[in-house]
Amino acid sequence: MRRPLIIGIAGGSGSGKSTVANKIINSIKGIESAIINEDDYHKKNSKLSFEEKKAINYDHPDSFEHELLASHLKELLIGSSVEIPKFDFNIYDRLEECEKIDAKDVIIVEGLFILYDKRVRDLLDIKVYVDTDADVRLIRRILRDTRERVRELDSIILQYMTSTRSSHINFVEPSKKFADIIIPEGGDNKVAIDILSSTIKSRLGEI
Amino acid sequence: MRRPLIIGIAGGSGSGKSTVANKIINSIKGIESAIINEDDYHKKNSKLSFEEKKAINYDHPDSFEHELLASHLKELLIGSSVEIPKFDFNIYDRLEECEKIDAKDVIIVEGLFILYDKRVRDLLDIKVYVDTDADVRLIRRILRDTRERVRELDSIILQYMTSTRSSHINFVEPSKKFADIIIPEGGDNKVAIDILSSTIKSRLGEI
Repeated sequence: MRRPLIIGIAGGSGSGKSTVANKIINSIKGIESAIINEDDYHKKNSKLSFEEKKAINYDHPDSFEHELLASHLKELLIGSSVEIPKFDFNIYDRLEECEKIDAKDVIIVEGLFILYDKRVRDLLDIKVYVDTDADVRLIRRILRDTRERVRELDSIILQYMTSTRSSHINFVEPSKKFADIIIPEGGDNKVAIDILSSTIKSRLGEI
Repeated sequence: MRRPLIIGIAGGSGSGKSTVANKIINSIKGIESAIINEDDYHKKNSKLSFEEKKAINYDHPDSFEHELLASHLKELLIGSSVEIPKFDFNIYDRLEECEKIDAKDVIIVEGLFILYDKRVRDLLDIKVYVDTDADVRLIRRILRDTRERVRELDSIILQYMTSTRSSHINFVEPSKKFADIIIPEGGDNKVAIDILSSTIKSRLGEI
């Protein structure tokens, strides 16, 4: 069992982080890999009422348990399995069940604060920031939230203006300076996906 | 003879383009490669007086013969040799002699407007932008010009404020949107250099 390669992908809401992560995984078929989503590491809110849970700013770094995420990455690095929590935005809390992940050759960790949180950042072999213009990100967020999550436009825009936007400006965007490479436009950027998958294969000695 | 891989590296003055280019070349030893410097494609000014030559804004895209650069890249792509001009900033003109370059496996073209000029940009396999903060770039420029080119500080700052800076804002910085990947901080970014050299080796089937 070799030491896993840990790739961190940060970027604003709607930047295309998940698409980039998924396209990388698809382009390295045959290599054992897993994606860890920072969203699942939102703190457990069991002691709060539903209204209190709903009022939490989920776009703020304080709403995450980054220490747990960092400790899981450390476990994977020494070849151990980990139990990844599952956060459910319908109940604004973690589910009882976890998802077991065994150590893989490649672990991609993606989320808003992957480069912001030092404990997580220091464990990354390759630090990627997906940089997409704010208007494009907003459009993606509106489309995703009205379609997939069936929310009202007013509520999406209120959340964007009161929490998402300030969190981006204060925490996400400044963390770009920690990136090894910045990918403009996210998942449509074929050359960047190819560059990252070549690098992974090269590091693992697969090509 | 395989088709050369052409890598374009753009970025502001003092961003670290040349360092990145040289470090990539050093990391792919054994692969035939060459660096083409956009600076050498400054227009021939033979008909002008020395004072007229000196007064030209050499940081403006119009002072370059990008059409010649693009035609040279096309020649190299089909395996032909080319005669690269040599621009000498002591005489503000091209030298009589050229430098012959044969087709190589990897050609790196680096300069301010490599991503700005569409004719050049369209010939690039990988488009890189080296993104370094303006103050760091200014410091590098001041140190380089006072040491290597033995110029007065006042003159360097005057040129920076009257031409370099506006050219950066109007032409160089906006061309970042054409990049496949953006490298923060330039030549000190080991992970990015490694990523690019892995990609080159992978594209050439060397690893």
